[in-house]
Amino acid sequence: MENEKWLLGIDIGGTSVKLAFLTEEGDIVHKWEIPTNIANNGSSIIPDIGKAVHNKLAELNVPHEKLKAAGVGAPGPIDQELGVMFEAVNLGWPDNFPLRDLMQEAVGVPVAIENDANAAALGEMWKGAGKGAKDLIAITLGTGVGGGVIVNGDIVHGAKGAAGEIGHITAVPKGGYMCNCGKQGCLETVASATGIVRTAKEFLAEYEGDSPLKELLQKNGDITAKDIFDAAQTGDELALRTVDSLADHLGLALANIGSTFNPAKIVIGGGVSKAGDFLLGKIEEFFKKYAFKPVGDSTEIVLAQLGNDAGIAGAAWLAANKN
Amino acid sequence: MENEKWLLGIDIGGTSVKLAFLTEEGDIVHKWEIPTNIANNGSSIIPDIGKAVHNKLAELNVPHEKLKAAGVGAPGPIDQELGVMFEAVNLGWPDNFPLRDLMQEAVGVPVAIENDANAAALGEMWKGAGKGAKDLIAITLGTGVGGGVIVNGDIVHGAKGAAGEIGHITAVPKGGYMCNCGKQGCLETVASATGIVRTAKEFLAEYEGDSPLKELLQKNGDITAKDIFDAAQTGDELALRTVDSLADHLGLALANIGSTFNPAKIVIGGGVSKAGDFLLGKIEEFFKKYAFKPVGDSTEIVLAQLGNDAGIAGAAWLAANKN
Repeated sequence: MENEKWLLGIDIGGTSVKLAFLTEEGDIVHKWEIPTNIANNGSSIIPDIGKAVHNKLAELNVPHEKLKAAGVGAPGPIDQELGVMFEAVNLGWPDNFPLRDLMQEAVGVPVAIENDANAAALGEMWKGAGKGAKDLIAITLGTGVGGGVIVNGDIVHGAKGAAGEIGHITAVPKGGYMCNCGKQGCLETVASATGIVRTAKEFLAEYEGDSPLKELLQKNGDITAKDIFDAAQTGDELALRTVDSLADHLGLALANIGSTFNPAKIVIGGGVSKAGDFLLGKIEEFFKKYAFKPVGDSTEIVLAQLGNDAGIAGAAWLAANKN
Repeated sequence: MENEKWLLGIDIGGTSVKLAFLTEEGDIVHKWEIPTNIANNGSSIIPDIGKAVHNKLAELNVPHEKLKAAGVGAPGPIDQELGVMFEAVNLGWPDNFPLRDLMQEAVGVPVAIENDANAAALGEMWKGAGKGAKDLIAITLGTGVGGGVIVNGDIVHGAKGAAGEIGHITAVPKGGYMCNCGKQGCLETVASATGIVRTAKEFLAEYEGDSPLKELLQKNGDITAKDIFDAAQTGDELALRTVDSLADHLGLALANIGSTFNPAKIVIGGGVSKAGDFLLGKIEEFFKKYAFKPVGDSTEIVLAQLGNDAGIAGAAWLAANKN
């Protein structure tokens, strides 16, 4: 429809900013990226975004009035009501950065802000694998492990914005590895891409049998999470043991979250989730083993569907619902 | 004030029904109990409650119009919107029992219903240890371990009403005891009154030193959770080890819930919590060890304050907010 307004979705990352114009139903109309310039304490990031939006509108010959509102996902803890980002170490911004007001000035429409992992969770709820669910957990298995918790259709922030820190659930109570957060045995140390590679190497060091994964490590000097899943799917025992260890830790953590608030869906995304249905099946196996039965029967585990677009979809949801 | 209306709070248990008239601010004006008659599939429970309410009003010479609304806490899974109780094994009611409508007819005012553990959580939020908190977990350490999860000032029910089943978090992933729920290693098997007695007996069987607790067991043929806490507070090494084991499991489970949604408060109630500040200090120690640091710094663990009145206070909250 000619008269329909657009939402502006902005997903700020450490290397690039993803931008999109979306319909009010959350469908992407135009999508593009600009580099994130973190020089000078990230002082040009917001002006760059403002320019990019205005230039894109001009290029499309669309008036600024077409824009209704904007949403922003950014990497770090935020206070949605104050419109402030407490810390943004990856972007160089000073503490307590007034992100909402500065962005509002730059793009000329009302802005709502959210942590990037939470924005991705909202995106999956609105337009992806979580569609239709009002209670949902999203977990992102990448270099680290991130999460977002949605209850009754909205993000849970908690007392100090530390809700959704699923990666810092203690998965190994005794003798776990140190995590970057300063604590030992975090889920992130065993369920991230980094974690699973470390687990495989540990198993390999003691493994006496033959293994394609072992050969790969000897040949390339290193292995990746993808190598492990590929080998596991061809039946490599050592790789299978590694995947089982990951799925066991993850299944337990998710089952315990499940018994606490029985979400309709748990959405698994991030690079590691590219292992797809093979990984999903393993996680489900351990999830059902550890979950309170009514939870195992009613909480569904699914793969994320939006990939890198989850953040801009969630930012657009914020634009539509938080302004 | 003469013109102020009253709320009716009803807490149905397997042996007695607790009833109270409360002000709209949740202060108890009159409180009394009647026995729960579970004969004939519990068919007289609701008529008995209706009679008790009408008789009490007559006795107090207060007109029925004084009552504004009622709330009911009952032991089992409920659907608040449908007004139905799915199962009520302790009361004898058939499945899918239309509790709300029948109670409404019996007491003559609008009724809202809730699971009893959730009602107790709401009571502590409104008038007890959780006052002022909008995000809160309540955990009850009794014969079993129950829980209630409150986000944004209201109970989380989850996909199938199985939220808050904190007692069925898997605390011992490998080699745990069987739980009544059919799963192994539930928190309930190690953190309930029953669980802690079993842990103490296990430790005692292998303990070669002297211990007041050991003497008590030999003298009485059995020990209670209270015996264990009493002995621990006098420095009995074996009792201390038992309490540490309980606090370790509980601290880990609560820390992991904390990292997931960073409640402002975690309220600990039930018979075991009578061990008071001694127990609280131990739980806090392990909670801080296992929690993501911002959570350890911002989520407060406190003792429940309302005891047996939590259920009626929560029922009154339901009366005030869900009708």
